[in-house]
Amino acid sequence: MVSTPRFFEGREVGYDIPAMPGMPEADIQTPALVIDLDALERNITRMQGFADEMGVRLRVHGKMHKSADIARMQIAAGACGICCQKVAEAEAFVRHGITDVLLSNQVRDPLKIDRLARLANMARIAVCVDDPDAVAELSYAAVRHGVMLDVLVEIDCGAGRCGVACGAAVVDIAQRVIAAPGLRFVGLQAYQGGAQHVRDYAERKALITEAVRQVSETTAALRAVGIACKTVSGAGTGSYEFEGRSGVYTELQCGSYAFMDADYRQVRDRQGEPVSAFEHALFILTSVMSRTKADKAIVDAGLKVQSVDSGLPVVFGRSGIVYAKATDEHGVVLDPDGTLRIGDKLKLIPGHIDPTCNLHDWYVGVRGGRVERLIPVTARGKAW
Amino acid sequence: MVSTPRFFEGREVGYDIPAMPGMPEADIQTPALVIDLDALERNITRMQGFADEMGVRLRVHGKMHKSADIARMQIAAGACGICCQKVAEAEAFVRHGITDVLLSNQVRDPLKIDRLARLANMARIAVCVDDPDAVAELSYAAVRHGVMLDVLVEIDCGAGRCGVACGAAVVDIAQRVIAAPGLRFVGLQAYQGGAQHVRDYAERKALITEAVRQVSETTAALRAVGIACKTVSGAGTGSYEFEGRSGVYTELQCGSYAFMDADYRQVRDRQGEPVSAFEHALFILTSVMSRTKADKAIVDAGLKVQSVDSGLPVVFGRSGIVYAKATDEHGVVLDPDGTLRIGDKLKLIPGHIDPTCNLHDWYVGVRGGRVERLIPVTARGKAW
Repeated sequence: MVSTPRFFEGREVGYDIPAMPGMPEADIQTPALVIDLDALERNITRMQGFADEMGVRLRVHGKMHKSADIARMQIAAGACGICCQKVAEAEAFVRHGITDVLLSNQVRDPLKIDRLARLANMARIAVCVDDPDAVAELSYAAVRHGVMLDVLVEIDCGAGRCGVACGAAVVDIAQRVIAAPGLRFVGLQAYQGGAQHVRDYAERKALITEAVRQVSETTAALRAVGIACKTVSGAGTGSYEFEGRSGVYTELQCGSYAFMDADYRQVRDRQGEPVSAFEHALFILTSVMSRTKADKAIVDAGLKVQSVDSGLPVVFGRSGIVYAKATDEHGVVLDPDGTLRIGDKLKLIPGHIDPTCNLHDWYVGVRGGRVERLIPVTARGKAW
Repeated sequence: MVSTPRFFEGREVGYDIPAMPGMPEADIQTPALVIDLDALERNITRMQGFADEMGVRLRVHGKMHKSADIARMQIAAGACGICCQKVAEAEAFVRHGITDVLLSNQVRDPLKIDRLARLANMARIAVCVDDPDAVAELSYAAVRHGVMLDVLVEIDCGAGRCGVACGAAVVDIAQRVIAAPGLRFVGLQAYQGGAQHVRDYAERKALITEAVRQVSETTAALRAVGIACKTVSGAGTGSYEFEGRSGVYTELQCGSYAFMDADYRQVRDRQGEPVSAFEHALFILTSVMSRTKADKAIVDAGLKVQSVDSGLPVVFGRSGIVYAKATDEHGVVLDPDGTLRIGDKLKLIPGHIDPTCNLHDWYVGVRGGRVERLIPVTARGKAW
């Protein structure tokens, strides 16, 4: 039976951490996020191989895994650095040793801008702007801290969120950046977020073709006034092949490829097959905890360990068993043949990986059925 | 302009914490969870007043706020203790001074049962069972740690999740509990989770009437074999008036009333009005961060600071402004009159409060436009 709770590096298994190295996978306290380290490594190698083949940089998106350790694995494989979305994320990554960070977002709060500029004392920091007024705000902070901030002008190439229209507005902001002390214009942020999850290949391709057209129009407008555009950064796991082959993008910002999720699995290629060659490397490990109905089981993974915004999770490697409903702390699993027993473990492929990872403090890295390492979710909850 | 980042009790504002006491509400780093302390106190008083009037205990649900400090406010107002859903939550509450905890859920993992029994050295611990086999598991751990665990048999009174059918199955389990060393049978867990969010008054009432019937049938069956049922625990913010007036329930397990959310606001009373007299006391404070379109603004609160499983948040106190879409780090806000400016703050009423609170490390308690205190989300992420 069970011995007293064990400690690993001062942390209590079951309270502070869901597992400890050396433990069999079956003993992990659930619900927990489990990484198949072999699959993760293959995914990292595969995406880097594509970027290398295309002659573009891979700037992995840290907003997905929020882990400095995984970022380091990606950088060791050849990634040029990371991007992230929040100043507190950038702080977490830089404090944990990442030295090249693109904040692929707008930062307008004075204290946040100040924090970002301070960070440029410790790492190369780039940031996006989509408003002429933002240029003076960033410049003020950069000068105050005696640093140089790299700036990308963000264009809205179809997602309808942040970003200016392509063309003249970009030229205006770029000229202001060039004139502003403490700032260096490096290029364009052109992420078509609206295309990533589009299922149909032709439709997705058309959206990226249009984004590429807008980027080309903008770089031409910049060239016409003598401004070189060193960097064009964008792309995600759903569209990276298009941007990678465009001859226009210089940097890919993919994130989800490292773990994959159920939603990305539904994005289709030219033949109508799942587009992605990437493997599922991240799972929510869950246990059956109640079994009072003949045809369903209750598991211990509900809304507090996953985000269901893009759909429910998919049960991995088990046919005939369906995760059908999530409440706060429970999942209802349909088990028409009544095969599941109390304590049985299931691996769930999350519906949407980014907000799911953000709920957890730890990844449990497993290999060959054993826990190999615990990986902290360095920037979990760093939303400011 | 901004001075260097400030520290409060060794924590860095903007990185570790979203604000510090004394700060104007407008300076809180967003996105952040903000509590209107006056409204929270009124909600606590109101629910306790109802329980006192009905002569039932209020056992507040800690799974909602996950805060030992707020639990203490509720206990100071008259609550008998708390309930929670996970062993790690119970550990967090007990380690932070809460001495009466009902784990209103099934616990079947051997290490978790062991952890729960250990906790009974420091607090009164009660737990639910819905399976005869669970009795021996709990008894073994209680004896091992030399403690007494209070046990409630959970009946499935309509939610279709955990719990046995009412009647004979309960009698069997109760008799086993009574015979088991280290366990004490105290009554029934009878929470009708499926009724809480039903909009229509008559429909909701019918569901609870049926639950009350099942409870009565079960307590009668227990009485028939000489077993007294000291405690019948259940009810939530959507239905508590029915259970409170039933004469059968002895303990209410309400949680959401303290903060309220957009979903509960849609639950209707007899007249078709919002049923709840409780005020919105918790908000996601968010800032406008991009404004490149004429009719919409982009705010900094997306899927990583709220759960949208029960719908999008509602903008508080502003007409004509609608939170229309959430992506990972952004919210798209429709602003047809173009009134919002960069840096403007909005208060969002979360769609679903429990999984939203679980995303955050801190509540910022405000009163009279100023930050009064920071309240840690003690059991955030404690899912094991």
